[in-house]
Amino acid sequence: MHQYASQDKIPGGGVGLAAPQDGQSSCQFFSDGRRKVDYVLVFYQRKQISVRGSDRLHRLSAPPHPPHRLSVISNGSSTLSGPVGGLGCAAGQRSAGDGEVCVDLAVEVELEADPAEGEMVLIREEFEARLLEAGLEMERDTEVRVYGPSFTRLHVPWQVLSREAEFLKIKIPTKKSYDLKQENGFSASLSEFWRKVNQPFQPNIPQLGHSTTKQLSHCFSRDKLHLFNITSKDTFFDNATRSRIVYEILRRTACTRTSQSMGITTLIAKGVYDSAFPLHDGDYKVVGHSERNDRQLLHDEWARYGAFYKYQPVDLIRKYFGEKIGLYFAWLGVYTQLLIPASMVGIIVFCYGCYTVDMDVPSLEMCDKQQNFTMCPLCDGVCDYWHLSTACGTARASHLFDNPATVFFAIFMSLWVATFLEHWKRRQISLNHSWDLTGLEEEEDHPRPKYETVLLQKRQMMRNKEKKNEKKKKKKKKIETGVEKLTWRDRLPGYLINISSILFMFGLTFSAVFGVIVYRIVVSALMAMSPDPETKSNVRVTVTATAVIINLVVILILDEIYGAVAVWLTELEIPRTESNFEQHLILKAFLLKFMNAYAPIFYVAFFKGRFAGRPGDYVYVFNDYRMEECAPGGCLIELCIQLSIIMVGKQLIQNNVFEIGIPKLKKLIRAWKGKGISLEEREEQRARPPQQWNLDYTLVPFEGLTPEYMEMIIQFGFVSLFVASFPLAPLFALLNNVIEIRLDAKKFVTELRRPDAVQAKDIGIWYNILSGMGKFSVIINAFVISFTSDFIPRLVYQYMYSQTGTMHGFIDHTLSHFNVSNFRPGNAPTSSYLPETTVCRYKDYREPPWSAEAYQFSKTYWAVLAARLAFVILFQNLVMFLSLLVAWVIPDVPKNISEQLKREKTLLVDVFLREEKEKFHLLQSLFSSKDQPSQGHPDTAHFRTLPLGLSQGLGQPPGGEGGESRVRCRAASFSQFTRQMSMSPSNDAARHTAV
Amino acid sequence: MHQYASQDKIPGGGVGLAAPQDGQSSCQFFSDGRRKVDYVLVFYQRKQISVRGSDRLHRLSAPPHPPHRLSVISNGSSTLSGPVGGLGCAAGQRSAGDGEVCVDLAVEVELEADPAEGEMVLIREEFEARLLEAGLEMERDTEVRVYGPSFTRLHVPWQVLSREAEFLKIKIPTKKSYDLKQENGFSASLSEFWRKVNQPFQPNIPQLGHSTTKQLSHCFSRDKLHLFNITSKDTFFDNATRSRIVYEILRRTACTRTSQSMGITTLIAKGVYDSAFPLHDGDYKVVGHSERNDRQLLHDEWARYGAFYKYQPVDLIRKYFGEKIGLYFAWLGVYTQLLIPASMVGIIVFCYGCYTVDMDVPSLEMCDKQQNFTMCPLCDGVCDYWHLSTACGTARASHLFDNPATVFFAIFMSLWVATFLEHWKRRQISLNHSWDLTGLEEEEDHPRPKYETVLLQKRQMMRNKEKKNEKKKKKKKKIETGVEKLTWRDRLPGYLINISSILFMFGLTFSAVFGVIVYRIVVSALMAMSPDPETKSNVRVTVTATAVIINLVVILILDEIYGAVAVWLTELEIPRTESNFEQHLILKAFLLKFMNAYAPIFYVAFFKGRFAGRPGDYVYVFNDYRMEECAPGGCLIELCIQLSIIMVGKQLIQNNVFEIGIPKLKKLIRAWKGKGISLEEREEQRARPPQQWNLDYTLVPFEGLTPEYMEMIIQFGFVSLFVASFPLAPLFALLNNVIEIRLDAKKFVTELRRPDAVQAKDIGIWYNILSGMGKFSVIINAFVISFTSDFIPRLVYQYMYSQTGTMHGFIDHTLSHFNVSNFRPGNAPTSSYLPETTVCRYKDYREPPWSAEAYQFSKTYWAVLAARLAFVILFQNLVMFLSLLVAWVIPDVPKNISEQLKREKTLLVDVFLREEKEKFHLLQSLFSSKDQPSQGHPDTAHFRTLPLGLSQGLGQPPGGEGGESRVRCRAASFSQFTRQMSMSPSNDAARHTAV
Repeated sequence: MHQYASQDKIPGGGVGLAAPQDGQSSCQFFSDGRRKVDYVLVFYQRKQISVRGSDRLHRLSAPPHPPHRLSVISNGSSTLSGPVGGLGCAAGQRSAGDGEVCVDLAVEVELEADPAEGEMVLIREEFEARLLEAGLEMERDTEVRVYGPSFTRLHVPWQVLSREAEFLKIKIPTKKSYDLKQENGFSASLSEFWRKVNQPFQPNIPQLGHSTTKQLSHCFSRDKLHLFNITSKDTFFDNATRSRIVYEILRRTACTRTSQSMGITTLIAKGVYDSAFPLHDGDYKVVGHSERNDRQLLHDEWARYGAFYKYQPVDLIRKYFGEKIGLYFAWLGVYTQLLIPASMVGIIVFCYGCYTVDMDVPSLEMCDKQQNFTMCPLCDGVCDYWHLSTACGTARASHLFDNPATVFFAIFMSLWVATFLEHWKRRQISLNHSWDLTGLEEEEDHPRPKYETVLLQKRQMMRNKEKKNEKKKKKKKKIETGVEKLTWRDRLPGYLINISSILFMFGLTFSAVFGVIVYRIVVSALMAMSPDPETKSNVRVTVTATAVIINLVVILILDEIYGAVAVWLTELEIPRTESNFEQHLILKAFLLKFMNAYAPIFYVAFFKGRFAGRPGDYVYVFNDYRMEECAPGGCLIELCIQLSIIMVGKQLIQNNVFEIGIPKLKKLIRAWKGKGISLEEREEQRARPPQQWNLDYTLVPFEGLTPEYMEMIIQFGFVSLFVASFPLAPLFALLNNVIEIRLDAKKFVTELRRPDAVQAKDIGIWYNILSGMGKFSVIINAFVISFTSDFIPRLVYQYMYSQTGTMHGFIDHTLSHFNVSNFRPGNAPTSSYLPETTVCRYKDYREPPWSAEAYQFSKTYWAVLAARLAFVILFQNLVMFLSLLVAWVIPDVPKNISEQLKREKTLLVDVFLREEKEKFHLLQSLFSSKDQPSQGHPDTAHFRTLPLGLSQGLGQPPGGEGGESRVRCRAASFSQFTRQMSMSPSNDAARHTAV
Repeated sequence: MHQYASQDKIPGGGVGLAAPQDGQSSCQFFSDGRRKVDYVLVFYQRKQISVRGSDRLHRLSAPPHPPHRLSVISNGSSTLSGPVGGLGCAAGQRSAGDGEVCVDLAVEVELEADPAEGEMVLIREEFEARLLEAGLEMERDTEVRVYGPSFTRLHVPWQVLSREAEFLKIKIPTKKSYDLKQENGFSASLSEFWRKVNQPFQPNIPQLGHSTTKQLSHCFSRDKLHLFNITSKDTFFDNATRSRIVYEILRRTACTRTSQSMGITTLIAKGVYDSAFPLHDGDYKVVGHSERNDRQLLHDEWARYGAFYKYQPVDLIRKYFGEKIGLYFAWLGVYTQLLIPASMVGIIVFCYGCYTVDMDVPSLEMCDKQQNFTMCPLCDGVCDYWHLSTACGTARASHLFDNPATVFFAIFMSLWVATFLEHWKRRQISLNHSWDLTGLEEEEDHPRPKYETVLLQKRQMMRNKEKKNEKKKKKKKKIETGVEKLTWRDRLPGYLINISSILFMFGLTFSAVFGVIVYRIVVSALMAMSPDPETKSNVRVTVTATAVIINLVVILILDEIYGAVAVWLTELEIPRTESNFEQHLILKAFLLKFMNAYAPIFYVAFFKGRFAGRPGDYVYVFNDYRMEECAPGGCLIELCIQLSIIMVGKQLIQNNVFEIGIPKLKKLIRAWKGKGISLEEREEQRARPPQQWNLDYTLVPFEGLTPEYMEMIIQFGFVSLFVASFPLAPLFALLNNVIEIRLDAKKFVTELRRPDAVQAKDIGIWYNILSGMGKFSVIINAFVISFTSDFIPRLVYQYMYSQTGTMHGFIDHTLSHFNVSNFRPGNAPTSSYLPETTVCRYKDYREPPWSAEAYQFSKTYWAVLAARLAFVILFQNLVMFLSLLVAWVIPDVPKNISEQLKREKTLLVDVFLREEKEKFHLLQSLFSSKDQPSQGHPDTAHFRTLPLGLSQGLGQPPGGEGGESRVRCRAASFSQFTRQMSMSPSNDAARHTAV
C-alpha cells in the first residue's frame, strides 16, 4: 500500500558493518549508517502544511515504534535481518529525540497553501515514486519544518549501479594489468633524474607515485564481473561515478504531471525542487590524524597558495569533480606551464631592447641636439614649433619594444601558439587514455525545460486554433498535432532581438572608444590653452593616464553587463539542448567581450594618427578639434602602454574584486542576515550538528565553467594577438595564472557545492576559439610589425636609400618638409620662440613644397607601402606554413600512448581468446571423458545435456538447426588435430632424416 | 594421425542442400558443393617433386577408394552424415578421372629440388597446419602438377566466422528496424518529385529503392544471436566479410619457421606462396536468364560506358569490394558531381569573356591602328620595330580569360573547394553511418615483412658481435639481445639516399623546364634569323607548339619514372608498418609528381618575362640569347595555353595509353605466349572447364588505390590551383572523370583479382592533401590575379590616373618610352622599315628618357605594386575567412544522420531495458507463484534454485555475498510498488476530492 518502508534508528552503539571510520566530522550516510547518500534533492518549504495520514504509515510498518522528533523515512531495507541497525554518524541526532509524530510527506496533504504549492507536492510525490521504481533508495527527515529546506537523500544500490554502469558503458580497470615499457640505458637514468628533479613539484598525493604497470580497462558488464577486482560493492564505483549514475536516472525519469520528457532539470526549472546536488566527501578541514579524504587532500595539496609551484593533482581532481572540470584544470595547467618558456623569451627580447638602446642609430639621431629638426606644431594656434630632440625619451622607450628582436618574437609566439595547441591535443589524448575515455560516445543531449515549455505552448495554441477552425468551417482538415519542433518562425523574434541587441552593443563599445578619443582630444586642447605652464607640460601624461583608466573602467563595467546580456539573449533564442545553449552563449559572450576588451587596442594599433591629415590639411572632429596624432616616438609605445595597463589592470581587478571581494561580501551579508534567526532555532542548530547535506546546501551552486574559460581566453588574446608590441605580456599572464589556478581551486573545494561529474573528452568549442585566435594573431602581428612599428621603413631605408648602408640619416628621411607659409589661417602658432622658421618637418613620406606635386605622396611612400604589404604576405604565409609544419611534425597521439593502446588491444583479445579456449577445453574434457568408446563418431546426445551457458559460449544457439552437429564437427577436428600435434615431433624427425 | 580428412566426390547427380543454383558457369565451392571457397592460396610449382607417402593417406580414410586423377583433399566433414555428397559444380571435373594416384602434398617429400624449395614446402605445411588449428577448413587438388599453379582453397565455418566477427566487432543489422522520418507537406512532394526526376539516373539494382525503414545495427555477439535475423548461416555474412575474416586469420597466423610475427604477407614476400586472394562472385558475363550475382550486377549497371550518366551503386561496390574501395568510388562520384556546377560557372565566365570582348577598351585600343604605338624590337639586330596593333589577335584572346569575371571565378572556385571538402566530409559520415562504421577503431597495424627481415638481420649481427666481444674480452657485458626496433641509425643510409635522390629529381625537373626554355629561346632566335619570311611569321606559333609538346612528353615520362623511384625510395626507408609505407610513398610520389606536372606552369605564371630586363639593359642567357618575354597580349594567355594543353594532353594520354593501351598490349603478349603451350595441355584445359580460382588467378593482382587517387589529385590541382587563368579547367576535368569512373570500374570488375575487403572510415591522407591544395590554391590564385593578369593595373589606372574615370588611355599608360639612341651596340634593328623612329615603347612602368632618373621604376610602378600586394592580402584573407565560414556553416554531420544516431541509441537502450525487464518479470513470476503465503517476507531459498543465467542476468554474481538477499529486497520493493501502482487511481480520486 505504501512505497516507503519506514525504519527507525535503533538506540545503541553497534557500529554498522560498513560504517564510515575515517574520522569525518559530518556524515554522508543514511540513518542506518551503511548506505551512502549519493545525491540530495532539496526543496524549500515556504508555507506551513498541516498533515494527516500518518496513520497509514503505521499500518504498514511491522513493529509500531515510539514516534520521536527526528525519525527518518527510507525505503530499501539494509542487509541486516535482525535489529542491529547501524549507528554510523547518525548517533548525534538521537539526543534531541522526543515525542513528535513521524510523518510521511508523500501521503496526501491538506493544502492550506495556494494550489500551485499543492501541485508541486503532487509532482514531487510522483517523481519520487518513479525514482523508487527505477531502483533508487530514498530517505527523508520526517520533521515537518515550518520554514526552510527539506532534504531528500538518495542512495543507489549495487544492482542499479551495475545496470546503469553497463548501459553507460563506463570503463573500469580490470584485474589484468600490464607493465609499462621501461626505458633502459641512458634514457632510463635521464628519466629517473628528471623524476627526482620534479619530486618537490609533485603534490603529496598517495598512489600518485611513478607506477610501472597499468591496469587494462574494459566497459563494465555484469556478465564479466570476474574480470574486475570487486573487493566491496559499496566502494567499487567511486563517489563521482555513483552520483553521475544517480544524476542520469534523475535526468531521464519523467513526470507525467509536468507532461515534459525531462526529469530533474525541468523540476528545478519549475521550482518543484530548489536544487539537487551530490554531496562533498566531508569537511575540507582535517580533524585529528585520521586519513584524509579526497576533499581534504585536494584542499591541502592543491587549493593552497603555498602550493603554487607544484603540479596539479589532475587525476584526483578528475576523480572528485569529474572529467569536464578535470580537463579545465589540466588545460589551465598546460597553458600556464607553456607560458614559462614564452615569458622567458619575452624577457630576453625585452633585455635585448634595453641592451641595444644605446646603439640604436635612429633614437640616437633623435636625441642628438645638433640635428635640430624643427617640427610642425601639434595643435592649432596655441602650440608652438618644437624640436625633435625633446622627444628623445619616448624614442628610447620605443626602442625597447620596437627592435628587430620583436619580429623574431612575433614569429616565435605564433609558433608557440601552434605548439601549445598541439601539446594540449596530446595531453588531452593521454588524459583520455589514462581516464579511460577513449571510445566515449557523445552523450545524447536532452531538450532544455524552457524549450519544452515553449513547445508545449505552441502545441496548445495549434490545438486551440484547430478547434476554432473546425467549429467555423466544419471542414475535415489535416490534423497537425505533431508539432515536433520549433521552427525558425517561432524563433524569429528572438533572433531579431539578438541581432539588434548585438549591433547595439557593438555600437556601444565603439562609441565608448570614440568617447574616450574625444575626451582625450578635448582635454588636451583645453589643457594646451591653459595659461599655466605646468599644466601644459603635463598634458600628455595626464591625458593618457586618465584616458586609459577611463577605458579600463568602461571595459570592466561593460564586461559584466555583456555577460548578463549574452545569457538573456541566448535564452531568447530558445535553443533546444543544453549544449546548444552553451555553444550559442559562449560564441555571443566571446564576441561581445572580445570586442569590448580589444576595441581600444585596435584603435591605437591601426587607426590612431592615420587620419590626422598633414600640415595645412588637418582633419577635424566636431569642426573644432584636430584628430590626435601618435606620440613622437611612434604609435608602438602608445600601444604598448595601453596594452599593459588594460591587461594588468583587468586581471588585477577581476581577480581581486570579482573573484575574491564580491564572494566575501556576499558571505558577510548572509552572516548579517543570519542574525535575524530566532534564538530558539539557533539553539536547535547548536544542539544538532549539521549533516553534510546541510553544510553543502549553504554553499554556492556551481554555474558552469564558461566564465573561467572566458577569462583565460581573453587573456590568451593579450598574449597572442598583440604580442609583437608587448613582449612582456606572457610574463604578466604567467604571474596571473599562477594565482588564478589556486584561486579557482579554493573556490571549487571550499565555496561551491559539489558539481555533477560530467564526462567530456575535450574542452569543446574553446579549442576552436583558441585555434581561431591563433590564426587571427598571425595576421594581426603581421600588421603590427609592418604598419605600427618602424621595422619596415628602416629596412627600406637601409637597403634602398641609405648611401652608406647604415641607418644614419634615417630620421631625416622619414620627415617631410612643410612650408609654413602654406598653413591655413589659424593653424600657425600665434606666438613662437622660433620666429624665423620657414620650413617645419612632419613625419610622413610626401613630396617637398618645392616639388611639382607638392605634398602628394612621394615615390618613397609607395615603395615603403609595397614593402610593408610584401612583408605582411611573407610573414603571414611563412608563419602559417611553419605552424602547419609544427602541427604536422608533432603527432597528435603521443607515441607511448599509441603503443599502449596497441598493447591493450592485443591483451584484450588474448584474454578473451583464453576464455574461449577454456570453455572449449571444458567442453572437450566433458565430451572425451564420457565418449571414450565411440571415438571418431561422437554421439550428439551428450551435448543436449550440456549446461546452457557453455553451449552458448561456443556460439551455438541452443536448439538452432545443426547446432549440435556442428559442435561435433568442431570437436572432432579438434581431437584429430591434437592427436596429429602429439605426433608431430616424430614426424619432424622422420622428415629430417629423409632430407 | 593425419590432419586431412580426404573425401571423394560421390558420383551421381544429387544436388547438395545448399548447392549454388544461380547459374554460375564457374564454381566457388569445395568439392562437396556446399562449403564456399572464401580464400585461395596459390603457389607456383616450378620443379618436379617426386612424392612418396601416399600410403599414409590411405591408412586413415575409412573406405579405400579407387584413386583417380583429380581427387581433392579437404578437412572438415560436411554436415551430411550419409553418402549424399554434393554435386555442385564439381561435376565437370569427373569426366577426366582415370587411374592416377591420390597424393597428399603435406606428407614428407623427397626433394630433388634445391633446399630452399624444400624449406618452402615445410613452411607451407606448418602454416596450413596452423590454419587448421585456427578452425579453417581446407581443400586442395591432389593432382601433382609438374609445372604451374597449385591452389589451396579455404573455407571458414560458422563457428570461426561468429567468433572472429565478435572479436572484430563487426556491426550487423539486427531484426529491429525503425521508420525513417518522413517529410510531410510540401517538402514530401518536393522530395518525391526529386526522386522521380532522379529515377533514370539511378542504377537498376534490386533493394536499392527508396527505403523508409532502417535496421538497427549492433556489434555481432554470440550471446545475442536472437537479435539478428539469421536465415542461413552460410549466407549471414556476405562474401566480403567472410574473406575479410579469413584474411584476418591468415595475417595473424605466424610461422615459427620463418621466425617472423606475421602470417601470409611474410610468406608471400618470401615467395612461399605466390599470391593469396578471395574469389570473385562468378563470371561477370550474364549467362541465361538467371538472377544476376553481384559481379554481374556491377558489370551491367556500373562498369559500362553506357551508364555514364547514372549514379554509382556505391553500396553494392562496398559490399563487393569493401569499404576502402567503396570510399574511393564514392569520393570520385562526389568530386565529379560537384564538378558539374563548377564547369557550368566556368562556361558562363568564359561566355562572358566572349560576349564582352568587343566592349573591352584596352583590347580595342590595342587593335586601333590609329593609335600607332611603335614598339621596341623583340630580339636583337634581326628584329624590327613593330606596331602594337599587329598583336590585336592575342589581345582579344587574352580578354577571354583576363576579365573581371575571372576574379569572381577564382573566389568562387576557392569556396567551391571548401564546399567540396565539407560535402565530402558529410558524405563520408553518412556512408559511415549506413555502412555501420561508426565507432570503428583503427586496425592495429602489423609490421611489414621487409622490416622484420631487416630487424632479424640486425639482431643476428648484434648477437654475433656480442659473441666476438665475449670471446675477446671475456668481460660480462650487458646482453643487448632486446633489439626491439630499428633506430634512425639503421635507416640513415636510406634517408640519405632519399634526400639526395629527391633533390636530384627536383634538379631534373627544373633542368627539364630550363631546357625547354633554352630550346624556345634558341629556336626562336634561329628562326628569326632565317631569311625565309614565312618561317619568320610563324615563329611564335611553331616554337610555342613544339615547346609545349616537348614539355608534355617530358612530364609523362618523368611521371612514370618518379612513380617507380618513389616506391624504391620508400622501400629503402624500411617503414615499420604497411600504413607507414603507404603514407611515406604517397607523400613522396605526390611531391615529385606535383613538381613535375606544375613546374613549367609555375614558370609561365610567375617568372616568364619578369627577368627579360628593359631595352638597353636586356638579360642574356649563355651570353648570346635574350631571355624570352611574354606575348604582347600578356602572360595570362600563354599560361592558359600551357595549362590547357598539359591538362588535356596528360589526361588523354594517360587514360588511353596507360590505362587502356598497355593492359591490352599485355593481354596480347600473354595470348601470344599462350600459343607456346603444348597441344596436350590445351586439350586438357578444354576438357576441364576452369574453376573460379583458375580464372581469377589469370587476372592482374590489385595493387592499391594510390595511382588512382594520385591521378585525381593532380587533376584537382589543375582545377583549383590555376583556375583563375583557365575557367574551362573544371569542364575538361568533368569530361575526363565521367570516363575515368567507368574505366576504373571496368578494371576492377573484369581485369583485377578481387581485392581483400579492407575497412576504412575515411580516405586518409588524401583528404589532407586535398585540403592542403585547397589552401595553397588560394594564395596561388591571388598571385595569378594580381601579378599575372592585368586586373590590378587596370583598376589602378581607372581610379588613380584616368582623367575621365574610364579605361581610355590605359594602353598608353602601361607603355614606357625608350630613346633608341640609348640602345647598346647590336641591340638596335639592323635594318628597319621605320627608319625615322626615335622613341620606341615597351611594357613596363619606368621613368621616361627625359626624366632625371631615366629608366628607373616610376612612382606608378610602386603604386601598382602596392596595389597588387594589397590585393593579395585582401584576397587571401577574404577567401580564407569565407572558406572557414563555409566549413563552419555546413555542419560536418548531416542533420538526419545525427537524428538517426540519437534515435538508434535510444532504441538500443530500449531494447536492452526491455530484455532486462523481461528477465525480471520471469524472476518475479517464478517467485510470486511459489511464494504466495509468505508475501512480504519472501524466503530466499527459492532463489538458490534459479537457473544460473537468470540470476546472473540481474547482475548478481552467483554466490556473491548478499546477492540473494539483495534480489529479495529488489523484488519486495517491486511488488510493493506494483501494488501501490494498482491503487493509484483511487488514490488520485481521493486526492482530487480532498482538493
